[in-house]
Amino acid sequence: MSALAVIVLAAGHGSRMRSETPKVLHKIAHLPMLGHCLRVARRLDAERLGVVIGAGGEKVRTALPALDERAEIAVQDPPQGTGDAVRQAMPLLDGFEGTVLVLYGDTPLLTEETLRRMTRRIEDGAGLVVLGFEPQDPGPYGRLITNEAGELQHIREAKDASPEELAVRLCNSGVMAFDSNYLASELPKLQNDNANEEYYLTDLAGLIREAGGRVLVETAPEDEVLGVNNRVELAEAERIFQDRRRRELMEAGVTMSDPRSVYLAYDTEIAPDCVIGQNVVFGPGVRLERGVEVKPFSHLEGAVMEEASAAGPFARLRQGTKLGPKSAIGNFVETKKAVLGEGVKAGHLTYLGDVEIGAGTNVGAGTITCNYDGYGKYKTTIGANCFIGSSTMLVAPVTIADGGFTGSGSVITRNVEADALGVARGKQRNIEGWAAAFRQKNGK
Amino acid sequence: MSALAVIVLAAGHGSRMRSETPKVLHKIAHLPMLGHCLRVARRLDAERLGVVIGAGGEKVRTALPALDERAEIAVQDPPQGTGDAVRQAMPLLDGFEGTVLVLYGDTPLLTEETLRRMTRRIEDGAGLVVLGFEPQDPGPYGRLITNEAGELQHIREAKDASPEELAVRLCNSGVMAFDSNYLASELPKLQNDNANEEYYLTDLAGLIREAGGRVLVETAPEDEVLGVNNRVELAEAERIFQDRRRRELMEAGVTMSDPRSVYLAYDTEIAPDCVIGQNVVFGPGVRLERGVEVKPFSHLEGAVMEEASAAGPFARLRQGTKLGPKSAIGNFVETKKAVLGEGVKAGHLTYLGDVEIGAGTNVGAGTITCNYDGYGKYKTTIGANCFIGSSTMLVAPVTIADGGFTGSGSVITRNVEADALGVARGKQRNIEGWAAAFRQKNGK
Amino acid sequence: MSALAVIVLAAGHGSRMRSETPKVLHKIAHLPMLGHCLRVARRLDAERLGVVIGAGGEKVRTALPALDERAEIAVQDPPQGTGDAVRQAMPLLDGFEGTVLVLYGDTPLLTEETLRRMTRRIEDGAGLVVLGFEPQDPGPYGRLITNEAGELQHIREAKDASPEELAVRLCNSGVMAFDSNYLASELPKLQNDNANEEYYLTDLAGLIREAGGRVLVETAPEDEVLGVNNRVELAEAERIFQDRRRRELMEAGVTMSDPRSVYLAYDTEIAPDCVIGQNVVFGPGVRLERGVEVKPFSHLEGAVMEEASAAGPFARLRQGTKLGPKSAIGNFVETKKAVLGEGVKAGHLTYLGDVEIGAGTNVGAGTITCNYDGYGKYKTTIGANCFIGSSTMLVAPVTIADGGFTGSGSVITRNVEADALGVARGKQRNIEGWAAAFRQKNGK
Repeated sequence: MSALAVIVLAAGHGSRMRSETPKVLHKIAHLPMLGHCLRVARRLDAERLGVVIGAGGEKVRTALPALDERAEIAVQDPPQGTGDAVRQAMPLLDGFEGTVLVLYGDTPLLTEETLRRMTRRIEDGAGLVVLGFEPQDPGPYGRLITNEAGELQHIREAKDASPEELAVRLCNSGVMAFDSNYLASELPKLQNDNANEEYYLTDLAGLIREAGGRVLVETAPEDEVLGVNNRVELAEAERIFQDRRRRELMEAGVTMSDPRSVYLAYDTEIAPDCVIGQNVVFGPGVRLERGVEVKPFSHLEGAVMEEASAAGPFARLRQGTKLGPKSAIGNFVETKKAVLGEGVKAGHLTYLGDVEIGAGTNVGAGTITCNYDGYGKYKTTIGANCFIGSSTMLVAPVTIADGGFTGSGSVITRNVEADALGVARGKQRNIEGWAAAFRQKNGK
Repeated sequence: MSALAVIVLAAGHGSRMRSETPKVLHKIAHLPMLGHCLRVARRLDAERLGVVIGAGGEKVRTALPALDERAEIAVQDPPQGTGDAVRQAMPLLDGFEGTVLVLYGDTPLLTEETLRRMTRRIEDGAGLVVLGFEPQDPGPYGRLITNEAGELQHIREAKDASPEELAVRLCNSGVMAFDSNYLASELPKLQNDNANEEYYLTDLAGLIREAGGRVLVETAPEDEVLGVNNRVELAEAERIFQDRRRRELMEAGVTMSDPRSVYLAYDTEIAPDCVIGQNVVFGPGVRLERGVEVKPFSHLEGAVMEEASAAGPFARLRQGTKLGPKSAIGNFVETKKAVLGEGVKAGHLTYLGDVEIGAGTNVGAGTITCNYDGYGKYKTTIGANCFIGSSTMLVAPVTIADGGFTGSGSVITRNVEADALGVARGKQRNIEGWAAAFRQKNGK
Repeated sequence: MSALAVIVLAAGHGSRMRSETPKVLHKIAHLPMLGHCLRVARRLDAERLGVVIGAGGEKVRTALPALDERAEIAVQDPPQGTGDAVRQAMPLLDGFEGTVLVLYGDTPLLTEETLRRMTRRIEDGAGLVVLGFEPQDPGPYGRLITNEAGELQHIREAKDASPEELAVRLCNSGVMAFDSNYLASELPKLQNDNANEEYYLTDLAGLIREAGGRVLVETAPEDEVLGVNNRVELAEAERIFQDRRRRELMEAGVTMSDPRSVYLAYDTEIAPDCVIGQNVVFGPGVRLERGVEVKPFSHLEGAVMEEASAAGPFARLRQGTKLGPKSAIGNFVETKKAVLGEGVKAGHLTYLGDVEIGAGTNVGAGTITCNYDGYGKYKTTIGANCFIGSSTMLVAPVTIADGGFTGSGSVITRNVEADALGVARGKQRNIEGWAAAFRQKNGK
């Protein structure tokens, strides 16, 4: 396999998004669209990675290192077309030889497989490979006119096309793979003698052919080349991504009662024989081991659920949660930086934050780790085989040692020793007739 | 623009709904279907508004003022057809001259744009405009037979139509706009010499044409003229309404990760650059300002979220909630008549009812405003920059002044002064070996 | 009606499920697919019920009694085709005469109506009735080739079919009804002289015809005969089941704002004029009486809601819940073995487990029945017209008698007498300047 460079065009702000956020930073499955492009580039082992931003691209520049720290930036200012954008990126390719793939930051659904088919054609000797697709409604798209040998003859804009050409269903996605030598030699020859005075990348098809290069076409399903220009299309791209991942997971052995109601993040990992109920939302960073059950109405992010553990319904697992084997988190329970041992149970109305809990411990309903005092966050440590009574307030930093109990309704501010009971509670008084008198006072 | 009167026919009970509630009071997006008709009438600046109810229409009569206080009622009893229904409403038009629009209380999806096109034709001189549509399956509908000039010649019931007429795809929705003069002069001429002995409004097409009036056709998409006769169709109408509003909001700059899982009320207002997660339900009376984030599994009604505030996941905002800028309501938190200042945070398992909270205050997990004593509701006032410890019970009426703290697990029944700490707590005792003994007692 | 025996073939493990659970035990609407087959058999009053399991079918054997205690098991080992499977089941039919229906454990959506049409044909004298369907894409299916009299001539595998035969859209579902005499006489004649060396049930069509029996075809919609081979198809079967039940319920008078977001169990019962909000999940064993409202984001199982009671949003009703007329369960409330009288209200953040509550009682926010001490479960009894203050811990076993009150934040360990107040609470102290000093200490 020859070397690969990927250039992602991300200069447009995308005014139809009606947003203060640049278009390519809008997210699909919790990852900016630009991140999806960079992610597929990484999978293809791209050794150079360039992103072309525009004049207003500072937010993209700021966001980029978190998406891919190796990505380099080129600036296109003013905007003068796709050909000009790639020209701005050429310094990033200094000394590079191999395949150059041009992607678009608002086209986040391309698959590794499709792009590999393109690069393989370059490796096999083509000068340029254009990615085509056959849309439901080809109306507005440029047509890819090929000869009998399958070589691209023209990319014809719909408005300039003859009736015969309009009848062609194969359209231009804009995605291209170049032999770097042809790109370097022909790019400088692009002209902007058109109505918009822009340099069009598509014109390279003609130039490369004239220079003796083979210009070929690969194709992808319409779903893969969807470009996002407004939030309706953003939602559509999200849907396509979700359907694709849901299907992959189900085929691998994950049960989803209603796959349409399960929302995966770009990096969600679910092992076979997990059961995901209806209405489950995955944020980034979740991994579920074999036999895990996530019940309906659960929200997970940054959490690991080990073998045969269970969560929900109405569970919220946050960043830093690790549920041990066979542990169970029940309804209206939130966890954050919570590491639970094997078989731990926290079934009801509980907040577990900044806490470590040993195996076999039972956490009663209404328990709260009071981990924040307005300034700092503090840790609670609970040993194995403890029993935390309902509505225990654990004022961190505090430790309940192995086998310790706490009494229901206690505010625990001091450590509880192993096998001891910690309790803090007012004595119950019963005031006879009080309720009757109160009722009378209220005229009942 | 000439004057407009709108008559809504709402006399049928709708037995196929299998309900004790009259059909037109069943709701779409939290507003009775009849309310949708009255709402579009108001947008068209109708100066008269009549609703025709039937013998059993008392529930409609009772509900009407809340839907539109200017709407007047006519009673049709017994039911003798649509023409008879309009005849009962004629007294409401006494002295009126202009356009008379006849709508149906079970056809709630007509748009202002469509109806304006109809009334404009009347203003331009037509005697009657009939609203047509081209259904997927025209089978059972009456066909609109027009001449070359586009004038309506006949409304032909499917059962009476010739094969040529059946091939016509343009069907009668029943919605009509009249020149009030033609309506007044021709309505009395309607005959009931048909199998059902009913007076049909459609027969006015012929009478007005004979009287020299032009009878024209306007068209609408099938979605707009859907009539609701059972709960399957009610759900279908709801879906159409939702899809329409979701799309409008997305085009205006609102992000919805999965628009199909966001349920809007008829009056939901969402500013651009808001992000609405999956599974969010809006009841009536919600307004979201720019930059608001509503996370998954949230339920909002009667609430205002100011700029860049956030709610959810698992948040429930109820009537009278106002969240200040950059405030945040977290999981398993309910608010009701709760006015929160800038930057207030209430992150976990909390009930805030009948409460005002100053800027910068942090409300700990498990906090509850005890606003109800079985008889009356009382108010809690919390100042700015307070810190309410976890599981604080605030027994209203009670005030925590600016900068005040409460200790975790305290029942606060008396006011806490500025910068003071209010605490009410039993002293913790640790009983050594208690848990071991308890375990032994239970044979473990 | 003649006697009926049903044989369900359930021997395949279903490797494409990628599961440790046998395919037929994967669930649709909370009932294993095999259970759906047995359920329809019971509705048809089958007097014999046989299930053929394979070598690895021990989990099926174990699960069977809970699905239908009358079902008997036959073992097919090794697997030698569908004909062989039925042969293994023949001892279960010893002495039986009538109709024998052969179903498949991975085909759970057949309706009683379809199967009745088949058995009626046998009763009318046919020797075999094969169930056909017309799939969207008939490609891979065996074709049912009939003569002019509608009698089945051949079942032709797609790979063996002529172009004319391939043009036939009527395909073989595999489901068959036999006259028991023909089955008994012809089954032993099956040959395995084919590439797989298997005995095919389909070959009985030819044998029975040769033996003078009439072989007929009944048809069903494609939806009914969907076979489940992987989890994508499992999700699809679930969807079909759900859509079918949703529609039935809506037609009977149940309102569902978004039917696609309401998930029914196989046995969910909902009376007319109930309103089910968006995102409601029903587990098994739920019955809703007239006028019940279930608000969005609710999860119910094993619960009865009596007339005009309400639950949600964010309610979780578990096994053994019974809500009295006009009672109301609010947000973030969980009930389990909880029997609530008329008009009881528990609105917020509450856990009610192992509890009985009398009519008219109000349960404050944050109330928890502490029903578990780590070893046993204990019961709480609350009388009528009680008022349970917010965040009351009811340490079971404990009783609050009629009209009793509890003070907010109390841990109640002893019974409260009628009309008395039970309270257990530390005295509030206000420490002046504490918060200011704490702030200073933290450098603020």
